[in-house]
Amino acid sequence: MKQFMDKDFLLETETAKELYHNHAAKLPIIDYHCHLDPKMIADDHRFESITELWLGGDHYKWRALRSNGVDERYITGKDTSDWEKFEKWAETVPYTFRNPLYHWTHLELRTAFGIDKTLNPDTAREIYDECNEKLRNDPNMTARGLMRRYGVEVVCTTDDPIDSLEHHRRLREEGFEIKVLPTWRPDKAMAVENPVAFREYVSKLSETAGIEISNFEDFSRALQIRHDFFAEAGCRLSDHGLSEFYADDYTDDEVESIFAKVIAGTALSEEEISKFKSRMLVLFGEQDADAGWTQQYHYGTIRNSNSLMMQRLGPDSGFDSIGEFNTAQSCAKFLDRLNSKGTLAKTILYNLNPSANEVMATMIGNFQDGTVAGKIQLGSGWWFNDQIDGMTRQMNALSTLGLLSRFVGMLTDSRSFVSYPRHEYFRRTLCNLVGNDIEAGLIPYEGFEKVRVREMIEDICYNNAKQFFNF
Amino acid sequence: MKQFMDKDFLLETETAKELYHNHAAKLPIIDYHCHLDPKMIADDHRFESITELWLGGDHYKWRALRSNGVDERYITGKDTSDWEKFEKWAETVPYTFRNPLYHWTHLELRTAFGIDKTLNPDTAREIYDECNEKLRNDPNMTARGLMRRYGVEVVCTTDDPIDSLEHHRRLREEGFEIKVLPTWRPDKAMAVENPVAFREYVSKLSETAGIEISNFEDFSRALQIRHDFFAEAGCRLSDHGLSEFYADDYTDDEVESIFAKVIAGTALSEEEISKFKSRMLVLFGEQDADAGWTQQYHYGTIRNSNSLMMQRLGPDSGFDSIGEFNTAQSCAKFLDRLNSKGTLAKTILYNLNPSANEVMATMIGNFQDGTVAGKIQLGSGWWFNDQIDGMTRQMNALSTLGLLSRFVGMLTDSRSFVSYPRHEYFRRTLCNLVGNDIEAGLIPYEGFEKVRVREMIEDICYNNAKQFFNF
Amino acid sequence: MKQFMDKDFLLETETAKELYHNHAAKLPIIDYHCHLDPKMIADDHRFESITELWLGGDHYKWRALRSNGVDERYITGKDTSDWEKFEKWAETVPYTFRNPLYHWTHLELRTAFGIDKTLNPDTAREIYDECNEKLRNDPNMTARGLMRRYGVEVVCTTDDPIDSLEHHRRLREEGFEIKVLPTWRPDKAMAVENPVAFREYVSKLSETAGIEISNFEDFSRALQIRHDFFAEAGCRLSDHGLSEFYADDYTDDEVESIFAKVIAGTALSEEEISKFKSRMLVLFGEQDADAGWTQQYHYGTIRNSNSLMMQRLGPDSGFDSIGEFNTAQSCAKFLDRLNSKGTLAKTILYNLNPSANEVMATMIGNFQDGTVAGKIQLGSGWWFNDQIDGMTRQMNALSTLGLLSRFVGMLTDSRSFVSYPRHEYFRRTLCNLVGNDIEAGLIPYEGFEKVRVREMIEDICYNNAKQFFNF
Repeated sequence: MKQFMDKDFLLETETAKELYHNHAAKLPIIDYHCHLDPKMIADDHRFESITELWLGGDHYKWRALRSNGVDERYITGKDTSDWEKFEKWAETVPYTFRNPLYHWTHLELRTAFGIDKTLNPDTAREIYDECNEKLRNDPNMTARGLMRRYGVEVVCTTDDPIDSLEHHRRLREEGFEIKVLPTWRPDKAMAVENPVAFREYVSKLSETAGIEISNFEDFSRALQIRHDFFAEAGCRLSDHGLSEFYADDYTDDEVESIFAKVIAGTALSEEEISKFKSRMLVLFGEQDADAGWTQQYHYGTIRNSNSLMMQRLGPDSGFDSIGEFNTAQSCAKFLDRLNSKGTLAKTILYNLNPSANEVMATMIGNFQDGTVAGKIQLGSGWWFNDQIDGMTRQMNALSTLGLLSRFVGMLTDSRSFVSYPRHEYFRRTLCNLVGNDIEAGLIPYEGFEKVRVREMIEDICYNNAKQFFNF
Repeated sequence: MKQFMDKDFLLETETAKELYHNHAAKLPIIDYHCHLDPKMIADDHRFESITELWLGGDHYKWRALRSNGVDERYITGKDTSDWEKFEKWAETVPYTFRNPLYHWTHLELRTAFGIDKTLNPDTAREIYDECNEKLRNDPNMTARGLMRRYGVEVVCTTDDPIDSLEHHRRLREEGFEIKVLPTWRPDKAMAVENPVAFREYVSKLSETAGIEISNFEDFSRALQIRHDFFAEAGCRLSDHGLSEFYADDYTDDEVESIFAKVIAGTALSEEEISKFKSRMLVLFGEQDADAGWTQQYHYGTIRNSNSLMMQRLGPDSGFDSIGEFNTAQSCAKFLDRLNSKGTLAKTILYNLNPSANEVMATMIGNFQDGTVAGKIQLGSGWWFNDQIDGMTRQMNALSTLGLLSRFVGMLTDSRSFVSYPRHEYFRRTLCNLVGNDIEAGLIPYEGFEKVRVREMIEDICYNNAKQFFNF
Repeated sequence: MKQFMDKDFLLETETAKELYHNHAAKLPIIDYHCHLDPKMIADDHRFESITELWLGGDHYKWRALRSNGVDERYITGKDTSDWEKFEKWAETVPYTFRNPLYHWTHLELRTAFGIDKTLNPDTAREIYDECNEKLRNDPNMTARGLMRRYGVEVVCTTDDPIDSLEHHRRLREEGFEIKVLPTWRPDKAMAVENPVAFREYVSKLSETAGIEISNFEDFSRALQIRHDFFAEAGCRLSDHGLSEFYADDYTDDEVESIFAKVIAGTALSEEEISKFKSRMLVLFGEQDADAGWTQQYHYGTIRNSNSLMMQRLGPDSGFDSIGEFNTAQSCAKFLDRLNSKGTLAKTILYNLNPSANEVMATMIGNFQDGTVAGKIQLGSGWWFNDQIDGMTRQMNALSTLGLLSRFVGMLTDSRSFVSYPRHEYFRRTLCNLVGNDIEAGLIPYEGFEKVRVREMIEDICYNNAKQFFNF
């Protein structure tokens, strides 16, 4: 029986161990997609307690707590103490066996705090106190300190086109040695299903871009101004959160008239909404291609299903789930539109439903054009798939239907400053998969190929992202 | 090479063996969803032959026989003898390698009859004779005897609202030590696609409930009367067989007018059918919430595809298969409706298409509210998924996307009195999964956690169901 | 660590080795579905170079090259030499670790050329020269020689109803000892979405069949004439490439009028197209049933997504991918139509999306009628699924939901004369799966059952196909 989470955690073969320890473990981290708050980095935020750090905004943990029968007071309530909340979490942790939270929790305790104990009701208090003591007193246990501790080289935050990027600027001016770059996330610029919010958004955009917006062309121009601004700030990626892909036919006139309508505060028909979104996806794509960026699509969600809790807590509180959509054909049509005009940027497709892994792993092959290795990428196991099984399935699909060697690898997609061990988790899983194949005689491991295997590991963990995104 | 189906069947590690033999094997069985005929229990039915017991109504075996090129005469025919039918089955069994039927057949021979031989044409006659001798002469080989033999503590049958529950009453009055409880299955109360049958159903319901039904309100009240009657008879679960979830918008007036229309014998439009079903799902849910029951949804079927055989043999004859539906959004909307009104009962979602495991494993998380641990459950691998691969996939999805620890575990969903070894099959599979994880260092197995792992096994096999359903 | 691709490649247990080497390896190959060019066989084509043989039309390799950042000039370009193209391929091969291309490449080098080296930039030149030397000078390295080398007994090519089958006739007359039979692929006879091409097709069909076609009845009769002609030429299978199944309701009048319309050059509505296709699928099915053939359905594709490359290179150039369709219900309705009339031929359903494996593995069970063992088949892992993972998933789904024992096994679906090692790949995978089960105590391996297991392997590799197709 292997020790729980020892140094060879997840590494089942000697080859896997060698690949991980000698080739993967020590590489820096390029976290090209996350939701860290740039202000916290700029402020070099210090955490009040492990409760703030762990439970302040982590909807994965909230879901586990709710599933375990814990009252909402101890999850997001204002009238319970940090210790009370932590205690409930410590009680829940032993009920998370086989859930990635069990591993993440202990990987984080170990790598951020040097704590080797398992968390459960018996150890809760001492772990709580020890973590808090370090968070309060250890000079390296701040936002920046934690990033340094994990060897982070680049992080890309997620930002709205109207964001001032002041914190990014502050960081650049201060010369923080870790690159903190913005990512262009213009979801609100296509959210015409809510005319009031959209109108307000356009008004803010007008202000930020410094031009008047009275028609769709102005709107596009304003976005371009902000796009340029983001590019100057070092932005190299966009990101789009979608349920489905939109690829309706539309004319310029139609788009102008839909824009006029929504700006006038009129609710749009389903068809108009879909046409407008179809237009926007093309515009976004063209702007990215023009700037040489990489566009990311995170699709397939059902969001905010629980309207009671939506009212109470707002979005991103743990009430989202995996959707079922037949969107492959629209995705193909959309990518083909851009490709036909020569404006298909480097692209990453992240599917939320793992049953679509094969669909998307073959989709990317339709638009590889030989200009950039791995130009169209199948995104790493996202959200609910960000665990051993999900990452394994993503890598297996990509391997058999595309080129694993060209994969840009892992990202955290996280709001947390201690989520970097997910890169470790990923790297161990990768090395284990490849190690197993080698041991089974599926990949040669001598001479030229031995060197290539090792390079492949290093490429996926670090070099591919570095080269691909061109930060 | 391991012996076929020895005492450590399916248990690949020492830890798995320990977990199974010391913690899972001996626990009683709570079979909270099955299709046993309560009359057979009340009569303490004695089987004429192994053919009646095994082949009388088992559409799994019928499908295998047809696939193996056996003529229907030897499957459901009236003009062939029990021996002739059994002989065909014995010829087919060696063609079922890798199918769960191969394991079920031999588990049942072993556990019910103490027969350790493999069934094939060479052993067919002696096994046939030995089984029949026992079925005829062994005082314990009756319906009740078999239930006792397998340590059954509770079974929940599946019953129509208009059922008199006389056999359940008889069993209660006789003081049969195994609880045999009814389950509320009101599928016919929403089957308005067939106005003639629906009208007839309403008429019978009126009679059984003892009130006149002239409008939808009466109809609801009549159902409530029967619901109360079921509750008094010990019913704690409902069950609904669906292709898809229905969550259309409707008004009370619309529902009344649809009801009036169908009662008048008029065929409804697709839209009306869907609206009515949407309304009924809400009504059913409210009644269950009010009674503190657990509602079960078995969805995703394509039923009776073979119209020729439907005419000849009727439903449940082996001509159903797994459907493809994009029903997650309706499911979310439906559950949200109930949840918004505070009338979401404890719920189990059973998906038939295993590709939807992840969709539904995340769906349940949207409505966990902390009042009951595991309030919304992902149902155990159902029907076509009731085998090693299906159960494994269900448990893996639940583990990584929810809390395996809170799982209410296995049920037989069966018409057979010898299907209880499926609980053994499930428990072995569970222990093997967990054992493998422990051996691989994925779960700690010392001190507090060692105790918790063992409790988790016992909880999933027995305690969770006991506590959850509150029989 | 196992040697890369040694004699026990993919065989993890002693039992698997025994099953493969003693029972699977030496059986002849029945390749009942491929895309070989019959002219090349009739001409006993000699290849100019390994580049022609390997890279001339293999869109799997083209996709890998494009994904690896290779310019199209070196893939399908006219202005680059054979060596330049091969060199790019040799550079790409080490980037295909974990992709089936890596295995196919080396299996082909080994079995066709006796070359045991790994292909990479260092070995590219010597391998290129050695292969070319053999292709040019070895008398056995021709189209026919290669077929003999791999022990091929039957191949079924894929042919249009208007094809003269002259090359098949030539081969028959010459007495080539390997059966080269045509397959009826009437896709163009239902492609009414393009009226111009369809009209032209009907005109050619009229000519070939030797009758005038002025209405749908003539059209059906002309197809029947050609169907008879194919039957006389030894054809025993049809094949249909579909995105989805079509099972709309239609009347004879509607079909006549749609036919008249499209022949008159008018574009049809979506509904008309779908009705017509629904009618054609029934007609095709009836003709096949009448002739005692087996009908194959390859469904679930998104084809030619990249319109730029479609213009440049035409279809089948590597720009197809896996679709998402909810087509199970139509499939059931379509099969039921034929079955209800007693005209359901032996059928093979090939799904492209592996997430539909379970849907289709249960679908086939709905129409097994006991007349022929395994009458309705789940097709072997097709196209993107033609690799270890895909074949394993197909066989696991078939095993647990149907009868693996009755499976007609592998086909190449290939345009290449060196793709036969895919049968070896399949056989090794099959033996490994079964061997693992035996070693784990899931299948008995003594006495009667030991014999049956071995027969099962031989049946799936050879006997089942031989018996089923009745060549």
